[in-house]
Amino acid sequence: MKLNKMQLLFFLSLLFVLPACNQKSTQPDDVDPLPSWNDGVTKTAILNYVNDVTNAESENFIKISERIATFDNDGNLWSEQPAYFQLFFAMDRVKALASEHPEWKTEQPFKAVLDDDMNELMKHGEHGLVKIVMATHAGNTTDEFEAIVKEWLANAKHPRFNRPYTDLVYQPMLELIKYLQENDFKTFIVSGGGIEFMRPWVEEAYGIPKDQVIGSSIKTEYDYNNGDPIIKRLPELDFIDDKEGKPEGINRFIGRKPVFASGNSDGDLQMMRWAESNKLKSFMLYVHHTDAEREWAYDRDSHIGRLDKGLDEANEKGWSVVDMKNDWKVIYPFELK
Amino acid sequence: MKLNKMQLLFFLSLLFVLPACNQKSTQPDDVDPLPSWNDGVTKTAILNYVNDVTNAESENFIKISERIATFDNDGNLWSEQPAYFQLFFAMDRVKALASEHPEWKTEQPFKAVLDDDMNELMKHGEHGLVKIVMATHAGNTTDEFEAIVKEWLANAKHPRFNRPYTDLVYQPMLELIKYLQENDFKTFIVSGGGIEFMRPWVEEAYGIPKDQVIGSSIKTEYDYNNGDPIIKRLPELDFIDDKEGKPEGINRFIGRKPVFASGNSDGDLQMMRWAESNKLKSFMLYVHHTDAEREWAYDRDSHIGRLDKGLDEANEKGWSVVDMKNDWKVIYPFELK
Repeated sequence: MKLNKMQLLFFLSLLFVLPACNQKSTQPDDVDPLPSWNDGVTKTAILNYVNDVTNAESENFIKISERIATFDNDGNLWSEQPAYFQLFFAMDRVKALASEHPEWKTEQPFKAVLDDDMNELMKHGEHGLVKIVMATHAGNTTDEFEAIVKEWLANAKHPRFNRPYTDLVYQPMLELIKYLQENDFKTFIVSGGGIEFMRPWVEEAYGIPKDQVIGSSIKTEYDYNNGDPIIKRLPELDFIDDKEGKPEGINRFIGRKPVFASGNSDGDLQMMRWAESNKLKSFMLYVHHTDAEREWAYDRDSHIGRLDKGLDEANEKGWSVVDMKNDWKVIYPFELK
Repeated sequence: MKLNKMQLLFFLSLLFVLPACNQKSTQPDDVDPLPSWNDGVTKTAILNYVNDVTNAESENFIKISERIATFDNDGNLWSEQPAYFQLFFAMDRVKALASEHPEWKTEQPFKAVLDDDMNELMKHGEHGLVKIVMATHAGNTTDEFEAIVKEWLANAKHPRFNRPYTDLVYQPMLELIKYLQENDFKTFIVSGGGIEFMRPWVEEAYGIPKDQVIGSSIKTEYDYNNGDPIIKRLPELDFIDDKEGKPEGINRFIGRKPVFASGNSDGDLQMMRWAESNKLKSFMLYVHHTDAEREWAYDRDSHIGRLDKGLDEANEKGWSVVDMKNDWKVIYPFELK
């Protein structure tokens, strides 16, 4: 067959245009998908892993349905110092509700909160925190609670940075989530934090859908409410999504093992081990808080986000460990502006 | 600007080719997305609803993140007669395990199962069924249980059709799930059946990912198991995903109300009401079993999948009701072959 010039041009133009249809919406190869990560072993390990398991020719290829990535939240996707942000929320709620509870003026641990006495509050331990959570997180409907969280986030400011708490998400982790999503990983949050505390804001903050959030929860109860159905939040713990709870929660909500797991504390170790036991090639990433200037530096002795056994096991097994100070060009998105 | 003939052809070819890039992978407008549904009010209502809420110009437009569709499973996506298929599984497990439990020869409700005496079994009610579920669904690991379910499905045959149970999925509902997915609805199963009984096969049977399955569950426990971590299934009920449990489960797993809900029994009524209470335009679909020849006909007096209050409320509120006999051209996929 002989083509005239016009036919040739037509077919050439098809060749030129059609490949664009098959292209993924991801960036071309020469654009760095992780621009806020410094070059180094951690970044290289992430890129190599993703390139390997998404390569259909590789013996480590993972089909899309198995590409499950799980991320701890506090200290892993956003900061957790000087205390879990949800604790600041609970303390603000105690203050907001104090006029309805005159007894809190003398009753611990509420008195400690009203006095802004963190040392006293911590003396009441886990039991005291549960009391505060029950008094502030229950007794309303799911719709009401969501509105309360949203309003708090719109107005509350972090004590050190004087910025909304949602400004304190980690830019490098946002890039990592997006990079994994663009490579057809389904990304989940698996956090010890409250599931209904996280859901109102994670879609906007991280691009992770509400239904891909696993967290701690209190019991709930459906009520037909004369034709205007509601779900009531009850003052009773249902599930603690921490330590052994993480693989249990992953099994309950996702139903398969992750191939990629990321956390920053000993509370994530069981999730790491669960991912590591996947028969498919898996990747375990610990975020190590080493940057006292831009963020915080803490690990083995911290009461919040303690990383001790996890750090030893990561080193022993060759899991990737982010050295925040050296691996991350920026910590927060606002540093880019 | 004047174009020569070649330039013109080049630009025309772009116009010709580029629109193909933007096209969704869905079928063109003239292909029926629900070919196994007879024309009628139900089919028209479904098509009109989806066209309306996915039309960016419509006042009822629903953004993609809110397009949550929930489907009951038993009697809604596959058959549930003459008994829930999971009960047949449990009975087969009792028989398989009987040699390890000589006491079952005389102990009810196990004796009834070993004697194939369904009437006697039913006399032991819910309490008897729980006993059978605990004896057959717990005491192993999640991996072991998944393998047991898969092996059963590969070998067991339905007593009436003498076919694998997974052959008895409803072809019209497969088309409906696909149609909703192609219109960017996220499809979930919300079933009273066991979550870990469903997950091994729903991806292949319905094209619904494992993590989009909500069901009843027993308690589980993570065990490091000397470096080979497992999750053990414990003989204790955790959650019953039926009636009030359905909106509670939807809230726990999905975190937002469905806009589309489909069920076939009074056990789905609370889920229907939950979807109906969505501020976004919602669609409630009841499947009414009216076809004694091709499937089964039952509603108000059935012990399995009783549809009584739900049918009244559907009629009262104008929810869509599938008349299986008249609305569905075929029931099962094998009828197409």
